[in-house]
Amino acid sequence: MLAEIITIGDELLIGQVIDTNSAWIAQQLNLLGIRIYQITSVSDDRNHILKSLQDAESRVDLILITGGLGPTKDDITKTVLCDYFDAKLVFNQDAFENIERLAKARNISINEANRKQAELPDKCIPIKNLEGTAYGMWFERLTPSPSPKERGAKKHFIAMPGVPYEMKTMMKNEILPKIKSQFKTPFILHKTILTQGIVESRLAEIIVDWENNLPANIKLAYLPSPGMVRLRLSASGAEEMSLKDEINNQLEQLKSLVSKYIYGYDDEKLEELVGQLLRAKNQTLSTAESCTGGYIAHLITSVSGSSEYFIGSIVSYSNKIKTQELTVNTDVLEKYGAVSQQVAELMASGIKNKFRADYAIATTGIAGPTGGTAEKPVGTVWIAIATPQKIISKKFLFGENRERNIQITALTALNMLRKELY
Amino acid sequence: MLAEIITIGDELLIGQVIDTNSAWIAQQLNLLGIRIYQITSVSDDRNHILKSLQDAESRVDLILITGGLGPTKDDITKTVLCDYFDAKLVFNQDAFENIERLAKARNISINEANRKQAELPDKCIPIKNLEGTAYGMWFERLTPSPSPKERGAKKHFIAMPGVPYEMKTMMKNEILPKIKSQFKTPFILHKTILTQGIVESRLAEIIVDWENNLPANIKLAYLPSPGMVRLRLSASGAEEMSLKDEINNQLEQLKSLVSKYIYGYDDEKLEELVGQLLRAKNQTLSTAESCTGGYIAHLITSVSGSSEYFIGSIVSYSNKIKTQELTVNTDVLEKYGAVSQQVAELMASGIKNKFRADYAIATTGIAGPTGGTAEKPVGTVWIAIATPQKIISKKFLFGENRERNIQITALTALNMLRKELY
Repeated sequence: MLAEIITIGDELLIGQVIDTNSAWIAQQLNLLGIRIYQITSVSDDRNHILKSLQDAESRVDLILITGGLGPTKDDITKTVLCDYFDAKLVFNQDAFENIERLAKARNISINEANRKQAELPDKCIPIKNLEGTAYGMWFERLTPSPSPKERGAKKHFIAMPGVPYEMKTMMKNEILPKIKSQFKTPFILHKTILTQGIVESRLAEIIVDWENNLPANIKLAYLPSPGMVRLRLSASGAEEMSLKDEINNQLEQLKSLVSKYIYGYDDEKLEELVGQLLRAKNQTLSTAESCTGGYIAHLITSVSGSSEYFIGSIVSYSNKIKTQELTVNTDVLEKYGAVSQQVAELMASGIKNKFRADYAIATTGIAGPTGGTAEKPVGTVWIAIATPQKIISKKFLFGENRERNIQITALTALNMLRKELY
Repeated sequence: MLAEIITIGDELLIGQVIDTNSAWIAQQLNLLGIRIYQITSVSDDRNHILKSLQDAESRVDLILITGGLGPTKDDITKTVLCDYFDAKLVFNQDAFENIERLAKARNISINEANRKQAELPDKCIPIKNLEGTAYGMWFERLTPSPSPKERGAKKHFIAMPGVPYEMKTMMKNEILPKIKSQFKTPFILHKTILTQGIVESRLAEIIVDWENNLPANIKLAYLPSPGMVRLRLSASGAEEMSLKDEINNQLEQLKSLVSKYIYGYDDEKLEELVGQLLRAKNQTLSTAESCTGGYIAHLITSVSGSSEYFIGSIVSYSNKIKTQELTVNTDVLEKYGAVSQQVAELMASGIKNKFRADYAIATTGIAGPTGGTAEKPVGTVWIAIATPQKIISKKFLFGENRERNIQITALTALNMLRKELY
């Protein structure tokens, strides 16, 4: 079972937009045992799109297409698909009601361009778009076989919007379940271990012997991102039960080697895990953020229901606010500097007391790229965690990239809190 | 002058790595007036790479290749290029000295795999790699013409490492200057208008007549993302000065049609623009965030140097904190509810006074997906802006997606502030 991805849009070819959709789609299909043969990005040009559809159809069974479904003139994917499949556009009541629902929820009026988005090719199966006005389209057809004796192969074309969250919701709710039920693929099992506080090369060193002895049908991938490394085991085989045993056996071995760096598994997120632990304990959290500038509060509040355990945050970007709101007195600031253990710990206890929370996170550091000194270079960060019993704190040196420093500080702080919540 | 990009590597096709190289390369070539016809990602497979080279050679003049030049077993790009050009690997002294230099600087020893990296195809021009051990390769050849009367076209193939910073340094130092000197290309100019507070379909309606009258060499693209739509004009032509006049003329027309929605141009960001305005006025900012949960503070502090004008934020996720810290008294909360004009305005004045800031942003809303009522459905948001003179506030209905609501609220609030700062 082979698939290809075709991403459509001039913005990709002039480099204005990085194609993040393809990697996500590839991951999802891989989980179902479907291999991606090629990814092709083409412009909003009729002949080019037609040629890329033809080429892909000659090579694979399943073609996933993103982009060019918007309401404006440069969006031509739908009409090109009509040409390719010799289809006509017909008004679709479901799609129109979806547009009405979204317009109502977003308090906007429907115009002619939107109305046209409710017209879909008569030869496709329409795919609901919960997050946007452009429905997806699923086409199937038998490709004529080159030899008259053989039956042609059935080919599937699925067109989706290019807006990432629209595409993702559509894939999760509609397309992946349908692919799963329609195609027989080898069993592929994936297990992912989420680690924090250790770099890829050091992890590789620790697990080298185990990795070299992995059986041929089990593969390991290192997936690093700022502040974390995911280790993904993928096993493939014909028999599900024995495969489960095999992968679980390897997973246990891997876990025992890197146990102290593991914070979770598979798609879990640190901010969700922390939320679950707080909720289970019926405890509350607050944050006092300097170098992370509200990013930790943002991560925590990106979880639906977080108002049950998150009281709030003070982003004390100026030292004045550290003193005024967080009881960090000016003597301490002068003596030790804003980026110091003393200030981090005072910020943590300050916010915990002020907001009457059970737990608190505090961060203070030099995010960069400027502001470093010989003694405290860019990337120096102090994190403090206040619990009902104590305050712990730790110093880090994360590097020179501002965005990366903010991300790593936030993940590291959430993981320090998680350990205290166990 | 047309080019294609071929990125090689299994990691791209299983979605382990997002291809950021292609967008960067495309941007660089666009600046030189070279259009990218297609981007193709293929696996580390000999036949697949050969086929993609053939296809690209039949379509364009310049082919840029990244990936597969590393020292390990899965890196086969170099030997496949030898096959394609019928070339032999020969030891290259320069490349070997480069490897020795890097090994010394990084305190590592050279092994047999590294030594093999100094072998390069005899038919290529080697390209220095300052940042890594894999040299690049530039191949040129005349493609046989289909018609015996014509001379074949000269085709260029440039292979580079896939590691982004190695590739970028090689492009900047070696490849782009050579491309510039060797090819005569048309000029391509891009201008982008950034809009906020209007949806794509409504924009299209407003500018439909102007868009229909665009000359053939100027194209318009709509690039929507949560809370904003970018409008990009791309013009191509032989003569730079007249092209500049042409695109600026169209830009002025477009600006006059949508002026009230424009917040910036090209790669500008709202959080940067707001920062520049505050700095120019020597004024300070604070935020009081409920539904945005610290995201506005995060955007503001993602800008280096923001400590000069950003004092801090109170994320008042619980109503208790709205009362305790932001002078929103419980009567008001009970009478109007937390998501109300009264509370938004009190939050704005509360934080402005408390932090002694010149300006303040306050947000309160129902981010969702739960918590909505008939009267205040999910997506209802109040934003208030306090200035030295007054408080303004506005109600919005953004929709049902939590992540999107947080993003749109933040951008809308920053844009409301920006307007007050002019």
